Amino acid sequence: MAGRIPPPLPHVAALEAYTPGTQPAGAGWIKLNTNENPCPPAPEVAAAIREAAGDALRLYPEPRSAALRAALARHHDLAEENVLAVNGSDEALALLVRAYTGPGAPVGYLDPSYSLYPVLARAAATPQVTVPCPVDFSLPVEAVAVAACRLFFLTSPHAPSGRGFSRASLAAVAASFSGLLVVDEAYADFADEDAVALLDRHPNLVVVRTFSKGRSLAGLRVGYVLAAAEVIGVLDRIRDSYNLDRLAQAGALAALGAEAHHARCVAEVKATREWLTGQLAERGWETVPSQANFVFTTPRDGEGRSGAEVARGLFEWLESRKVLVRHFPRHPLTASGLRITVGTRREMDRLLEEIDSWPNRAKQP
Amino acid sequence: MAGRIPPPLPHVAALEAYTPGTQPAGAGWIKLNTNENPCPPAPEVAAAIREAAGDALRLYPEPRSAALRAALARHHDLAEENVLAVNGSDEALALLVRAYTGPGAPVGYLDPSYSLYPVLARAAATPQVTVPCPVDFSLPVEAVAVAACRLFFLTSPHAPSGRGFSRASLAAVAASFSGLLVVDEAYADFADEDAVALLDRHPNLVVVRTFSKGRSLAGLRVGYVLAAAEVIGVLDRIRDSYNLDRLAQAGALAALGAEAHHARCVAEVKATREWLTGQLAERGWETVPSQANFVFTTPRDGEGRSGAEVARGLFEWLESRKVLVRHFPRHPLTASGLRITVGTRREMDRLLEEIDSWPNRAKQP
Repeated sequence: MAGRIPPPLPHVAALEAYTPGTQPAGAGWIKLNTNENPCPPAPEVAAAIREAAGDALRLYPEPRSAALRAALARHHDLAEENVLAVNGSDEALALLVRAYTGPGAPVGYLDPSYSLYPVLARAAATPQVTVPCPVDFSLPVEAVAVAACRLFFLTSPHAPSGRGFSRASLAAVAASFSGLLVVDEAYADFADEDAVALLDRHPNLVVVRTFSKGRSLAGLRVGYVLAAAEVIGVLDRIRDSYNLDRLAQAGALAALGAEAHHARCVAEVKATREWLTGQLAERGWETVPSQANFVFTTPRDGEGRSGAEVARGLFEWLESRKVLVRHFPRHPLTASGLRITVGTRREMDRLLEEIDSWPNRAKQP
Repeated sequence: MAGRIPPPLPHVAALEAYTPGTQPAGAGWIKLNTNENPCPPAPEVAAAIREAAGDALRLYPEPRSAALRAALARHHDLAEENVLAVNGSDEALALLVRAYTGPGAPVGYLDPSYSLYPVLARAAATPQVTVPCPVDFSLPVEAVAVAACRLFFLTSPHAPSGRGFSRASLAAVAASFSGLLVVDEAYADFADEDAVALLDRHPNLVVVRTFSKGRSLAGLRVGYVLAAAEVIGVLDRIRDSYNLDRLAQAGALAALGAEAHHARCVAEVKATREWLTGQLAERGWETVPSQANFVFTTPRDGEGRSGAEVARGLFEWLESRKVLVRHFPRHPLTASGLRITVGTRREMDRLLEEIDSWPNRAKQP
């Protein structure tokens, strides 16, 4: 046996990794594929990081991210025991899967939604329950409420559609579902409503947030969890003991304090989103009403046709023009559409220009 | 059922978290309890972080930490496929446990060694096999080689003793052990020998390293794994897709390039370690020959007595004088000793001064 490599566990051997959106090398790309915020981070963030980048880096970080937790608790009017800071909200999703699900304790999610959920489930040998999205991507309250699973990931606003769910409908799900309802609010900064105010009435509710989108800090990897103290305690026990480094703690704390900058960036993205939706409508394209920092639109060619081939054709054309968007060809509800991040107004102008120069858009003679 | 909080999995409910060493608040402490490096990080690190802390933080990091992997591969004369960068070496240990161990696939480790191993095992519902350390903390080659487990964590240099293991003895274990031999080389920068050169002959060998100790970057959370491409591929599939943020990638890359600074810091720590060991010997205290940046010493009181009570007494005296060291009272091999980080020469002077002013050191009349 000596020298042989032992195999990993069977469910790990069978695993396919999550595929993040392409991060193109080289200059000149317009990157509308991973829902990054077109606004730069608040200037206070760089200042705080520069301050924290000195000799103190030789020392371990504060293991609980205590100052950041306290600030998040104040920000959301909750107690510190209701807050956990994590290395990107993906860490929170992974911790929840590992703590609450496994063989015999399935995980559920909307189909389609964030493609990381099935990867996390498979990595934990957890059976999966999917609840199909209706064609308009509205929330199937009844179907989620009765889903036979220990934990349900509800992406709200929904991705990849951008559809927002009302607080009342989220409350209805939380009240009826017997498991842990995890509302994945990655895009909540851009939405009209969120689930935070429901936490005190629904102890089985968990809200997951990120600094990646609304706070323009995808490169810093900071997210957080809001939940009952009992749930936070469980996640705290299984996380890495130093999950957030000194720079991430300092940068996130500074970002949270920069409220005016945040409000301005969010307002800009929302205004551009509405303008872009109108521009696409003028071209006869249907776009799901978005509460996120992206739109999901169904392109049409010059003959007025839509479908998977049309979407793929436009995706490839845009890519050839160095404009990156996202196409999800494997699901019938998404194959005919493209998910496009709301960028700067200038980036949106370039996007529309490239769409209008797409050869397939020209009317056939 | 509505509104109730579902319980976590039974093995998670039963879990006690790892307890990191105290990070004291307030000034004036001499911190010799968590093996941080007394040298500041290389100046190039802060410069690289400041450079990376700009507007690009709005963008996701490079998901594979590709530049850092390439640099690590060059540094160790390996291929890039043999390297994985992680969010602190603790992440590597956790990934290895989750990928290769579980019910029916036990994990093994030396007893005593790093107290995180049993926590990781319990978090994965993995049975544990412990191999007792001999009283002199030498490597029990035969016992490890026949340990009935899928994966064995071998801390080398050993902690908390500081004992170094020869490359030949590590090779002997790797050749005979049928599972994955994970050599946890957190302290290898301060050792005479390490296991890296054995990788090409022993595909079941995994080496885990960290930037926390040798590179003075405990606050940045960067570690890495060196192993067969097959093992790296498995870990890559189950890690968080963006496990290292932009600042950590940039800072670690800069630290790796600062070879002269690194060599100087390591030489200083080693010189101070030898001097401290001599000073303790002058007081009649036995210290395990250390290949790490800490020493494990057995204090004696004024009557020449040692033991758990003596060690606890000195620990508490030092703490009252704002000098933090580490006492592990629960294990018979460690209860009589203290683990003391090698700090600056000035910190060591203060330590010895406080030791010499310990009331129990005064000869009884």
